[in-house]
Amino acid sequence: MRQEDPVATHAAHAAPDAGTRAMRRAIELAARGLGSTSPNPVVGCVITDASGTVVGEGWHERAGGPHAEIHALNAAGAAARGGTAYVTLEPCNHTGRTGPCAQALIAAGITRVVYAVSDPNPQASGGGATLRAAGIDTAAGLLSEEAEAGNAAWLTSVRLGRPYILWKYAATLDGRIAAADGTSRWISSPESRADVHRLRAESDAVVVGSGTLRADDPHLAVRGIDGFTAADQPLRVVLDTHATIRPTARVLDEAAPTLIVVAENLEDTATRHLAGVELARLPYDKYGISVDALLRELYGRGIRSVLLEGGPTLAGAFVAAGAVDKVVGYLAPVLLGAGPLALADAGIGTLADALRLRITETVRIGTDIRVTAVPASAPTAPTALKEH
Amino acid sequence: MRQEDPVATHAAHAAPDAGTRAMRRAIELAARGLGSTSPNPVVGCVITDASGTVVGEGWHERAGGPHAEIHALNAAGAAARGGTAYVTLEPCNHTGRTGPCAQALIAAGITRVVYAVSDPNPQASGGGATLRAAGIDTAAGLLSEEAEAGNAAWLTSVRLGRPYILWKYAATLDGRIAAADGTSRWISSPESRADVHRLRAESDAVVVGSGTLRADDPHLAVRGIDGFTAADQPLRVVLDTHATIRPTARVLDEAAPTLIVVAENLEDTATRHLAGVELARLPYDKYGISVDALLRELYGRGIRSVLLEGGPTLAGAFVAAGAVDKVVGYLAPVLLGAGPLALADAGIGTLADALRLRITETVRIGTDIRVTAVPASAPTAPTALKEH
Repeated sequence: MRQEDPVATHAAHAAPDAGTRAMRRAIELAARGLGSTSPNPVVGCVITDASGTVVGEGWHERAGGPHAEIHALNAAGAAARGGTAYVTLEPCNHTGRTGPCAQALIAAGITRVVYAVSDPNPQASGGGATLRAAGIDTAAGLLSEEAEAGNAAWLTSVRLGRPYILWKYAATLDGRIAAADGTSRWISSPESRADVHRLRAESDAVVVGSGTLRADDPHLAVRGIDGFTAADQPLRVVLDTHATIRPTARVLDEAAPTLIVVAENLEDTATRHLAGVELARLPYDKYGISVDALLRELYGRGIRSVLLEGGPTLAGAFVAAGAVDKVVGYLAPVLLGAGPLALADAGIGTLADALRLRITETVRIGTDIRVTAVPASAPTAPTALKEH
Repeated sequence: MRQEDPVATHAAHAAPDAGTRAMRRAIELAARGLGSTSPNPVVGCVITDASGTVVGEGWHERAGGPHAEIHALNAAGAAARGGTAYVTLEPCNHTGRTGPCAQALIAAGITRVVYAVSDPNPQASGGGATLRAAGIDTAAGLLSEEAEAGNAAWLTSVRLGRPYILWKYAATLDGRIAAADGTSRWISSPESRADVHRLRAESDAVVVGSGTLRADDPHLAVRGIDGFTAADQPLRVVLDTHATIRPTARVLDEAAPTLIVVAENLEDTATRHLAGVELARLPYDKYGISVDALLRELYGRGIRSVLLEGGPTLAGAFVAAGAVDKVVGYLAPVLLGAGPLALADAGIGTLADALRLRITETVRIGTDIRVTAVPASAPTAPTALKEH
């Protein structure tokens, strides 16, 4: 078996050369799959011929469909022979619903494979070794940090065995999500509200609690995203311990699938008005439906990324459960001085127990500021993968 | 009387030429006086000789001291003859504690005066006319927006007859200024806390309420600013309706002057423990000491800029009184879910009555974000001044 060539790896790191440009493009392509590949990762692939010219591109578009490498090889055709494949994730070695990509790359005559991140999934890993055994040069680690960030949800879910949780909120500068009388339309700018649809589109599920349901009667489906198809709508999940949802709630329409989660010991009569609605019965604790039980349930349904949109109580329960991987706050330049807050009781009584975050991005969006942060305890790269 | 030359004015606007550079430098110089010139404005002056070379610079350093033009003329000496003076504010025409600058410019043989902002103060204005009457070219409006922003506090106080109010707060992303048990050291980063000393140094007074006094026993004096002298310490103002302050409070030390504001009808016996402390007795309303009465009192004492550092109740009173001209929020990437908030009741019950702001700056500072905003109703430039 040939070993990975460390010199080549180093060279690939050194400059924004053609290889780096190809990998950056592959990472861009991978992101197009966000929200429609679960339980698979997002993957992008760029193939260059022997002269370095791009001859094929592809990305994993949806679970069950061809992998990124297959799309790219199909696009390249005969031009792939003697070329290099840049892939954001180690090519798979297993035969799932589609054939193993390592074999396809070998069969196409690719002579070098550069991948950003090794596959941590024991079912799929080993593609690099298979390639090397076939005499193909491999190098791992090119733009690994960017590629890992692009696959944060899937990598986190593989590591933790639960979906990746993005908590999104919109508040005034003084932390209010509504005025004292409950009015909240509109605190944030149209641009911020449109941006939330992008977050939804990139998620497998959107979760709210019954408080938000009662206050806002939200629809929760994705709107206004170019190229977004109905099949990609995230699962709308409503935590409704006592099954108080009305059959006319907007979230129960046909725009997207919906799951209503009720208490496991709820009597059948309490859900009689929800005939035809998909229900899950789960245990609950003092915060409401158990977050751990919910995440197990969603993971079992193939959900790898969750957008938590629900109000302060639900957000508090997720923070208390240690189940927030990323925070996106839309801060509107508004002061209220009264009204409900973005985050309620999370079991934190003193500053030493606060959830400390690290800000990863701050941008102006419309008239608002969008702040993105991750727990300070999170590794800088979402996961540490061993190199060969 | 010669009229202002509109062509010259236009030319000065058109390009980042030597004149624009000189005025920008004058604006930088002016800012050095922030916090020590009240009740005067901050002013900067740059003098160039006939060839455009800078031959003198100056700024108004402190009330009672020479004006910017005098400093710059002294620095230029004979080189001022035939030269141009760039001044951030229309040169004064009156004889106060120092002679009128218009006469000094004429006497020095300056042949052209470019000023950014016309003087709105009826006592001081007319300098431009005096210069023109003496045969000197004048042009107004060069970089007027930048110069006005640099003089926002003074211009606002001239316009409104009350000090300019900057409300500063430090909070978590979910709007808390402390945890449920009151712990608050340290929510914000050392860099943010150092930045607050800069804000204090640029202010004439720092105001807190008795709640902050009890919770934090703050010192409120400026520390750690290079070149800052004890004489420039802002007035420390504590609103203490019932005179509950203890004689050992840190704010009563000798580091800076202090004013304790109590209720006007408070019995003399209630303030007996404060012998030797400067007291003001003012009316109060449901929010506490009347904000309007306080601002009149401070204005009468020559205070033109106030840094409002006090807690949520006091901030609510200022917002309710319409007395917030600028907001600087230090947002720390921390989540608490419980604890006191930055802003309490401001008399706003519904979203339509919210105080809408416009964000003017967002910067990362240490691990935090600093957001600066002004009321959305404020003009883009702090005041609209008529051109000649």
